[in-house]
Amino acid sequence: MERVAIGLLGLGTVGAGVARLLESGSERIARRTGRRVDLKWAVVRNPDRPRDCALSSDRIVTDPRLVLDDPEIRVVVEAIGGTEPALAWILAALAAGKDVVTANKALLAEHGAEVCAQARKFGRAVAFEASVAGGIPIVQALSVGLASNQVQNLSAIVNGTCNFILSSMGVSGVTYEAALAEAQFLGYAEADPTLDVDGTDTAHKLAILAQIAFGASVTTNEIPRRGIDQLQAADIRYAGELGYTVKLLALAKLSEGGLELRVAPTLVRRSTPLAEVKGPYNAIRIVGDAVGDTLFYGRGAGGMPTASSVVADLMDVLIGRAALTFRSSNFWPEGALSPTLASSTQIRSRYYLRFSIADRPGVIGAVAQSLGRHGISIASVIQHDPGDDDHPGAPVPLVIMTHSAVEADVVAAIAEIDGLDAVRAPSVCLGVEE
Amino acid sequence: MERVAIGLLGLGTVGAGVARLLESGSERIARRTGRRVDLKWAVVRNPDRPRDCALSSDRIVTDPRLVLDDPEIRVVVEAIGGTEPALAWILAALAAGKDVVTANKALLAEHGAEVCAQARKFGRAVAFEASVAGGIPIVQALSVGLASNQVQNLSAIVNGTCNFILSSMGVSGVTYEAALAEAQFLGYAEADPTLDVDGTDTAHKLAILAQIAFGASVTTNEIPRRGIDQLQAADIRYAGELGYTVKLLALAKLSEGGLELRVAPTLVRRSTPLAEVKGPYNAIRIVGDAVGDTLFYGRGAGGMPTASSVVADLMDVLIGRAALTFRSSNFWPEGALSPTLASSTQIRSRYYLRFSIADRPGVIGAVAQSLGRHGISIASVIQHDPGDDDHPGAPVPLVIMTHSAVEADVVAAIAEIDGLDAVRAPSVCLGVEE
Repeated sequence: MERVAIGLLGLGTVGAGVARLLESGSERIARRTGRRVDLKWAVVRNPDRPRDCALSSDRIVTDPRLVLDDPEIRVVVEAIGGTEPALAWILAALAAGKDVVTANKALLAEHGAEVCAQARKFGRAVAFEASVAGGIPIVQALSVGLASNQVQNLSAIVNGTCNFILSSMGVSGVTYEAALAEAQFLGYAEADPTLDVDGTDTAHKLAILAQIAFGASVTTNEIPRRGIDQLQAADIRYAGELGYTVKLLALAKLSEGGLELRVAPTLVRRSTPLAEVKGPYNAIRIVGDAVGDTLFYGRGAGGMPTASSVVADLMDVLIGRAALTFRSSNFWPEGALSPTLASSTQIRSRYYLRFSIADRPGVIGAVAQSLGRHGISIASVIQHDPGDDDHPGAPVPLVIMTHSAVEADVVAAIAEIDGLDAVRAPSVCLGVEE
Repeated sequence: MERVAIGLLGLGTVGAGVARLLESGSERIARRTGRRVDLKWAVVRNPDRPRDCALSSDRIVTDPRLVLDDPEIRVVVEAIGGTEPALAWILAALAAGKDVVTANKALLAEHGAEVCAQARKFGRAVAFEASVAGGIPIVQALSVGLASNQVQNLSAIVNGTCNFILSSMGVSGVTYEAALAEAQFLGYAEADPTLDVDGTDTAHKLAILAQIAFGASVTTNEIPRRGIDQLQAADIRYAGELGYTVKLLALAKLSEGGLELRVAPTLVRRSTPLAEVKGPYNAIRIVGDAVGDTLFYGRGAGGMPTASSVVADLMDVLIGRAALTFRSSNFWPEGALSPTLASSTQIRSRYYLRFSIADRPGVIGAVAQSLGRHGISIASVIQHDPGDDDHPGAPVPLVIMTHSAVEADVVAAIAEIDGLDAVRAPSVCLGVEE
């Protein structure tokens, strides 16, 4: 059986998972691909660090040139993350005639066009299933299994840290800070969770999903985003009273005004498959013009789930399928125009609003009138009796669920309402995914 | 751009959906495949019947030889269903050097080996994404996206008719008969629903899934199956009280005793993604050794969802990827041994039991003792006060949820309990999917 040498860049959580899976799955991989994979070199920064895999220490090296300059190595697996040196190494590997498998979302979100142009220039393929939603084969589902569809709507939970935190807040009613601390304790959140909780990581993945699902070349910065770090337990509780759960969603939708792209905490109706995605799990809901509603669910991170996709990509490269997919899908095509993004006067949704108002006559009426003046119709209202524990005169919450409304109108109405004497700004506004 | 002629066998719900999607998606298909698809002939039984597509009537013919003998036709799409004449036509198409795309589950479940052997003999490919779970790209997920995994567990809702009926029974508490009538009225069940409700259709799909996920060549008859036609509204209600919903599942699981295969109404814990699959939707839960828990959700039937998969397969054939997948996956390999199926002494699960017992002292004790003698431990019990409406002396229900138990022990205990004077046989036993 033919032996194929590969090089692995990085031997952290994902890299070590890949090394383990190549070992434990070697017979299966050989049977499917007709080839024996030989992990020739794994490039690391610190060769003395203990590794969570059985790779022989004489395969662990620090010099990337051993991989990039070795003509025997046909496939390079990049699992170091971040943009540098990953970008330079991937470009060099492609220039040296090697195919590339990468799990690097930040790199593709920012430099997908450059990477794909280089691959086309040198007639190679780039496979990146693991860059979005870890173990869920969503890149393949979009580029092959649903390829006969025009995707109309995509809504995705692609950050396990945020989903874990929101699930905890929803179940036990704890604050964001307490849920974050629990996630850190359990290893679902990093010591510095900023890029997860502020929505940046989700926006990286949405940039990639927007490319695959809509052929839209956007960078992370073009995607309006809000994270979960400002979210209050009260809003999760009120959403629950209205029959919704709150999820950090990556949203992309084709509408008359163009493509709507957004990362935001969003209300999702309970007892739907997307609402039941809990803890560190990810899911991507896709609505296609032919297939209708679909959902793909699984682990979005972790060594073995991510390695599952990396090794599947590697097998795809060895079988020759990845080259066909890369060519036919034409990811990040050269000379692509920026997509027309829908403006806030063209975006419609239902909205969840929470105002902190003075507990005196006429205030609810003033809020409702302001909404009405902006053409926003109210679907339901929650206002509870202030409890005995509350300070007399303290503001009380007024929660409103609107019917479908135009985003710009909602923004204008909130600005007006926040200017009222009887309202303590800022008010809360969350979109609703139906 | 190269033009590729294809032939379509059958122009019913699925065939007409394929014709519509080839028309509406022609630009997208051309862009992805680099080819123009020309639907040259559609073979039907009755050319005068009105069709739900815009295909020109001079393309609609009755003689299959026009497709099978036409050297210009490179791909044959089979959408007639059933085993004959589908099998003969597919074998002829492969012998004539054409690739085949089929949506035919019964054919593959019964004759998968013959079809694949013929394809290998003539160096052609067979693609059959649409044969299981309509629009959900599950064949591809298992054979490509999750190919690096050893699948450990598969549990699938793959019959929309049954899922619709069970959802209705669960929501409104109606009887099986009333829910079936509603499904027929809405077009989710056929006039003769036997093959759906008795589990045969689900077993067909499980035979295919077992091949793709486990490489197990089994025919439908080797799969123990129970349908939903004997299911009583009371059991759905009690399952609900215990926190479960009832689904007709196709189950396949690797265990020490071998492969467990089964089609049966099964309790699924509420608020899990599988339990929230409602109405006519399908879903397949896959647990892989690397990826962990995944789920794939969407429409399992209907013209356009099924056409979505058929046309995606067709695109895969045109791109050249289907040939690589067919070769590397080695579906229904020749000379395959029958898989070792786990026996009932090797199968463990929790079980839901319902006994109809006489409302007098000592009966619950006798039932519990019998379970205990067979090593079955009780997790929870429901017995309500008999209502005033009940006839005095009428049997009352006793519902028991067991801890994990051996199937053979449960069967033996029920036989013993059903022999008690104070118990009205037959008792109800349903498995529980955790």
